[in-house]
Amino acid sequence: MAIKITIKASYKLPFFFFFLSTLFLASSSVTPLINALSDDHNQKCQQSICRGVGSRHSLLRSKDHPQDAREEYFYCSQSCGTSEDPEQCETECRKRFDEQLKKEAEEQKAQEEEGPTFNPNPYYFPKFELRPRFLAEEGAYFVLESFARLSHLLRGRIQNYRTALLQTTPGTFVLPYHLDAESIFVVWNGRGTLTFVMKDTKESFKIENGDVIRVPAGATTYLINNHTTENLSLVQLFQPVNTPDLFEEFFPAGYKDPEPGSDYSFLHGTESYYSVFSKDLLEAAFDVPREQLEKAFGQQKREGMIIRASQEQLEALSKQPSPWWRKLVPWSMGSDLNFNLLSQRPLHSNNYGKFYEAPPQEFNQLQDMNVSVAMLDINPEAMMVPHYNTKATYLMMVVDGMGYFEMACPKFTIPASEEEMKYQEEQADQQSGAYVKVSGKLSLGDVFVIPAGHPVSIVAQNNNPNNNGNQNQNLRIVGFGINAGNNMRNFLAGQEGNIMKQMEREATQLTFGQEMEQILTSQKQSYFVPASRRGSSTEKA
Amino acid sequence: MAIKITIKASYKLPFFFFFLSTLFLASSSVTPLINALSDDHNQKCQQSICRGVGSRHSLLRSKDHPQDAREEYFYCSQSCGTSEDPEQCETECRKRFDEQLKKEAEEQKAQEEEGPTFNPNPYYFPKFELRPRFLAEEGAYFVLESFARLSHLLRGRIQNYRTALLQTTPGTFVLPYHLDAESIFVVWNGRGTLTFVMKDTKESFKIENGDVIRVPAGATTYLINNHTTENLSLVQLFQPVNTPDLFEEFFPAGYKDPEPGSDYSFLHGTESYYSVFSKDLLEAAFDVPREQLEKAFGQQKREGMIIRASQEQLEALSKQPSPWWRKLVPWSMGSDLNFNLLSQRPLHSNNYGKFYEAPPQEFNQLQDMNVSVAMLDINPEAMMVPHYNTKATYLMMVVDGMGYFEMACPKFTIPASEEEMKYQEEQADQQSGAYVKVSGKLSLGDVFVIPAGHPVSIVAQNNNPNNNGNQNQNLRIVGFGINAGNNMRNFLAGQEGNIMKQMEREATQLTFGQEMEQILTSQKQSYFVPASRRGSSTEKA
Amino acid sequence: MAIKITIKASYKLPFFFFFLSTLFLASSSVTPLINALSDDHNQKCQQSICRGVGSRHSLLRSKDHPQDAREEYFYCSQSCGTSEDPEQCETECRKRFDEQLKKEAEEQKAQEEEGPTFNPNPYYFPKFELRPRFLAEEGAYFVLESFARLSHLLRGRIQNYRTALLQTTPGTFVLPYHLDAESIFVVWNGRGTLTFVMKDTKESFKIENGDVIRVPAGATTYLINNHTTENLSLVQLFQPVNTPDLFEEFFPAGYKDPEPGSDYSFLHGTESYYSVFSKDLLEAAFDVPREQLEKAFGQQKREGMIIRASQEQLEALSKQPSPWWRKLVPWSMGSDLNFNLLSQRPLHSNNYGKFYEAPPQEFNQLQDMNVSVAMLDINPEAMMVPHYNTKATYLMMVVDGMGYFEMACPKFTIPASEEEMKYQEEQADQQSGAYVKVSGKLSLGDVFVIPAGHPVSIVAQNNNPNNNGNQNQNLRIVGFGINAGNNMRNFLAGQEGNIMKQMEREATQLTFGQEMEQILTSQKQSYFVPASRRGSSTEKA
Repeated sequence: MAIKITIKASYKLPFFFFFLSTLFLASSSVTPLINALSDDHNQKCQQSICRGVGSRHSLLRSKDHPQDAREEYFYCSQSCGTSEDPEQCETECRKRFDEQLKKEAEEQKAQEEEGPTFNPNPYYFPKFELRPRFLAEEGAYFVLESFARLSHLLRGRIQNYRTALLQTTPGTFVLPYHLDAESIFVVWNGRGTLTFVMKDTKESFKIENGDVIRVPAGATTYLINNHTTENLSLVQLFQPVNTPDLFEEFFPAGYKDPEPGSDYSFLHGTESYYSVFSKDLLEAAFDVPREQLEKAFGQQKREGMIIRASQEQLEALSKQPSPWWRKLVPWSMGSDLNFNLLSQRPLHSNNYGKFYEAPPQEFNQLQDMNVSVAMLDINPEAMMVPHYNTKATYLMMVVDGMGYFEMACPKFTIPASEEEMKYQEEQADQQSGAYVKVSGKLSLGDVFVIPAGHPVSIVAQNNNPNNNGNQNQNLRIVGFGINAGNNMRNFLAGQEGNIMKQMEREATQLTFGQEMEQILTSQKQSYFVPASRRGSSTEKA
Repeated sequence: MAIKITIKASYKLPFFFFFLSTLFLASSSVTPLINALSDDHNQKCQQSICRGVGSRHSLLRSKDHPQDAREEYFYCSQSCGTSEDPEQCETECRKRFDEQLKKEAEEQKAQEEEGPTFNPNPYYFPKFELRPRFLAEEGAYFVLESFARLSHLLRGRIQNYRTALLQTTPGTFVLPYHLDAESIFVVWNGRGTLTFVMKDTKESFKIENGDVIRVPAGATTYLINNHTTENLSLVQLFQPVNTPDLFEEFFPAGYKDPEPGSDYSFLHGTESYYSVFSKDLLEAAFDVPREQLEKAFGQQKREGMIIRASQEQLEALSKQPSPWWRKLVPWSMGSDLNFNLLSQRPLHSNNYGKFYEAPPQEFNQLQDMNVSVAMLDINPEAMMVPHYNTKATYLMMVVDGMGYFEMACPKFTIPASEEEMKYQEEQADQQSGAYVKVSGKLSLGDVFVIPAGHPVSIVAQNNNPNNNGNQNQNLRIVGFGINAGNNMRNFLAGQEGNIMKQMEREATQLTFGQEMEQILTSQKQSYFVPASRRGSSTEKA
Repeated sequence: MAIKITIKASYKLPFFFFFLSTLFLASSSVTPLINALSDDHNQKCQQSICRGVGSRHSLLRSKDHPQDAREEYFYCSQSCGTSEDPEQCETECRKRFDEQLKKEAEEQKAQEEEGPTFNPNPYYFPKFELRPRFLAEEGAYFVLESFARLSHLLRGRIQNYRTALLQTTPGTFVLPYHLDAESIFVVWNGRGTLTFVMKDTKESFKIENGDVIRVPAGATTYLINNHTTENLSLVQLFQPVNTPDLFEEFFPAGYKDPEPGSDYSFLHGTESYYSVFSKDLLEAAFDVPREQLEKAFGQQKREGMIIRASQEQLEALSKQPSPWWRKLVPWSMGSDLNFNLLSQRPLHSNNYGKFYEAPPQEFNQLQDMNVSVAMLDINPEAMMVPHYNTKATYLMMVVDGMGYFEMACPKFTIPASEEEMKYQEEQADQQSGAYVKVSGKLSLGDVFVIPAGHPVSIVAQNNNPNNNGNQNQNLRIVGFGINAGNNMRNFLAGQEGNIMKQMEREATQLTFGQEMEQILTSQKQSYFVPASRRGSSTEKA
């Protein structure tokens, strides 16, 4: 009997997609420039993406359909910004999107009944792989599945990490909870205050774009979004402490199930963890009669994990922040758990892009997790040249802009079954010496993994040539470097940091032949370069 | 074809139970207070336990029967202390016990033939899960099975640890052996001398209640019990160095199989590891003729792993202990491998209980294992209030007294088969937000695991109200904190250390509603409180 | 349906064996003493080996046949050195060898068709387990399969390491590549220059016998053999950074497949990793037209991974070595990545053998891998006495001489199937207390694993009594100690370092009886002793 594993969960797919698009669009809606993108340019751009990642399609099978539907809706919706009747346009986009999703959900269901499905691209997880743990008008909390379950190639260190996305709308409070996981929160949009309480201390941080907060395992954490218009958005990295790839939220107070029939009724509320203790025990522990306890821990449940708060409550909860000078002082007292990454000097920077990174050997608060936090910001129509990381595996989540990546991986084939997967693992060494391209389109919410040693290049695409240089269109990615202590980024092209330029003339000749010496001198830029060759049009002409 | 795994070993069950009870009772027999427990109170107490852990039964299936038999025998036997004809009473208790065990062994055998069995409570391992590696009149050595095999939920760090119980009767010597594991020995009863030899050194320690000895991997260790009346009892933690969850004893000299037909004939003796080398090789290595070697390594085997020693031998082996001042000096020279935990200031302490702990960041000898050693001592009818550990997973073994624990765990269901287990692992994330109570009765030899982040409360029960405050009736637990570096204990009730009291008033209101503020001020005690509400009887009346 | 796993690869077996023997013999051919071995002595010696490891055969099944064929050929070929017509002798040896291999390959194939095969000796991997990744006239690169796949008992730390053998003939260049693994290279024959390039640095090392180079993960490495007659030979240890037991070579420039029909045509060449990127992307990254790029990265592939270099190229590439004083200074500046192990004071040394070791606590460059590097050099007809390592598991590769080892292991049985293996793992604890001998013949390329705690003895055999004391006949082994920090070697015989001599007289008597005290005083040598008892012949007479 074959062991049958169904990796895809069966939550109601259309609602999920619907919400995801809505939420992301809501966030985008405060950035009017994206809405100004012309439909024409989208068409052109989409084609150029397809050209860029053409070979990817041979690696992907059924999964790329849902992504295409979502992409299509995204472009369609954005084009409405310049439409004469934006509302009507939007309604049509949604209708088309819903129909497509419905069709795809049916297709997928049929496939699931046929047998197990595996993720066909082992390093790229488009946004629809993010699973909602909470969804409501007030905000959302999405968690990416365990890497070990997403891909049979992601064994090893990365298997012990999980990633998530938390977004809250203005004027909200996220209920307190703790995790059985060490975590790092990175803020990439909005403003708020994050607080966590431990045995004898309370830490409170004003947070904004670029802030990194190291939340220790077991810290009971809550946060507010006290901005009047902007969503507060965070990317989170978790390192579970009990079971390598599982973590749980522990809520002292529970919240209700979504209303039956609502868009999110496929999700569940949660109890208070207090409620599992015997009544006798709780009575003795608190020294109060049980009727009083029941009110606090059981009956008066909140509406959701993220709830509206009054102006007074928000004000009270945004007081007592950490002193203003904390973020300016480089990590030195062993007590600060936050810093602003964008206030650091970028590691690599020129007119085409910026790379910020906080490595664990310099930022003590990241040392015990041996993780670095990076922010990559590539100008439209520019690219980060091919390079590889010497030790670290990077977990990347796109938070703004559009583009694609290309990566050279040792050859693998997509196993059709568990037995085949096992067989391939046995044979892995036999395939040595051949590489395949792994690539993927990038937009908000997409996750990709760059294993150590794998050459990679990331390209930003410009959706509107009239807005060149505008910050909002940059491709922005938050990255976590797993095992990043003493990691180096060896560049394979460009003027500086290019390892090929370190080799002796004779070694270069023996390796590549005569041509290479001249090739290595041509590019004058370093790290970030224009995405199309400067002189190419004239030469081609 | 389904893969069939039988976890339970097939050693002769009744003898094992018989011995275990005998050994533990023997140890208890020097503590007359337990024997003084009245039968009436037992009955009452047993009921209150059942009330306390009532919901547990829905989690347990077949395994709880043997425990009940053992418990019943325990209470029955204790009640004989006040009986008019104690011997006759004891004989009857044993007879009843043997019959029940026989019946249960048959039931279990029948179940095993039906198919695989899994431990239904993934965090609680009653004493009958301890497997004997050696058993005789002179003492016993029990090892708990690998956690990974005991429970599918105990993956992760704890999987790399094992625990054991070693007990020797007065006037005995434990044969030298080394392990392929780092270990920590904790003495909780008796006196003796423990010695280990390494390449160029010999370390010798006088040991007594509360002593902690860090035995390095590969140290050839032997010990004596030179007390005239008391058993010497140790709890051991092992961290295997070769294979994560397996370790072996390596004996330079072997010992015989138990006599055929004896109570322990289901166990085996061991050879000398010297005996596997070729005779030629040994002759050359020792430069003596082989006849002489055979006598030492093969023919003259000892009677058992634990043997009687003469008074002269015991005296000689208890000389040359480490200097008296060693235990007083806080760890600072990097050379001391022992200290007395009970001589430290307790971490939490009041009239209701005491918590001693040696954390790895303060006790250098525990640093490389990143393990803390704890001793919990709760007065009868008191409790340690609900709390959770932020990073550490605690492995707890009860060494005295009676009680129970309650723990809030993310919901799990007991898989009926390996496929189901696999399926559940895949689905694990879907169940997020629901908690179940895990609980268990506690008495000598029971082991339970408290994963990081899981709220837990431990309650001591008083078996004899006339002996209030007597040390012997306290619930005493030896605990090992895995991954304990910088662990914190966040309390969920009580005056001090209570994280709920750290939250701002507004956060408390948003989270729990108005009631909570008042509830948090009621309990004036901290950490340990009476197990029943002080004012409850008056209020109820 | 049973899961079927075929561990053996199906590359053309005879060619592989043929090459391996040729290469190793070529290396040996510069050492005329081995060729001078008399046929008679071989016969005698072979018998004594068989006697020594007689009991091993009960552990081995089908796999020992190929080894015997290879061994037979090895002895046969060596005997030709003193033959009247060496060429004719050699031809006959090869013919016999080829026939045997063919027969065995057929046998093995038949067995594989029957069902899965498992390695029957879990700690010994004769040289034919080394898999070629590259083979040519210019040199060879062999990698040992993942331990986890070789043996079900090698779980745990050692599972995360791999080992390899690299040999190049005089006047050659090894193409640059990087690995997704930390590595340690140990030179045991020849001379050359090893260079690696990183982002902003180039490190270049003159290398010779005894040199240890710590190559960081991701360093693009190349090397030359600039000796005129000698092979350059290295043993390599890898610790993969992405997936515990898998690593890949990443070549910036590729090399061709072997000629069809050649001896090595079962192997494959490799592409350049540059070649997987889109042409557009590369054009932009290098800022050169694509025609130029294609020449460098695609069309002008090298002949192989190891290629001939001109005298001028070799000279240029052996310039700029690290300064001469680098190897003399003990590790202190945190920047040196190499040292010469044979220039250190041996840890144990006498007239019968030498043991060199660089432990991680003293050699900073080995600290992050927590690995020690050892070189064992035993004189012919001498032995290293029985001992065990307290914490470290040693991975040993024979690089010169002949001999055998004996090791005491906790009892295991060879599983016939995966289900049986699983069942045995469950039962592992039940077998406690019995030991079996694991042993194996040793010659160039054989690998064996000594787990921590396992008593072991290693014996060197003399193939030519007329050449006593000649360095070339010593049994030389390169060892890597996994988890070696603070490891100790506890000796079980000999004058010094013998833990049995640390025990009190009374403990020795209680443990072994009266005989042992006298036995322990007889041997006057320490660590290394003659392999046969000095007085034995006179006593026997």
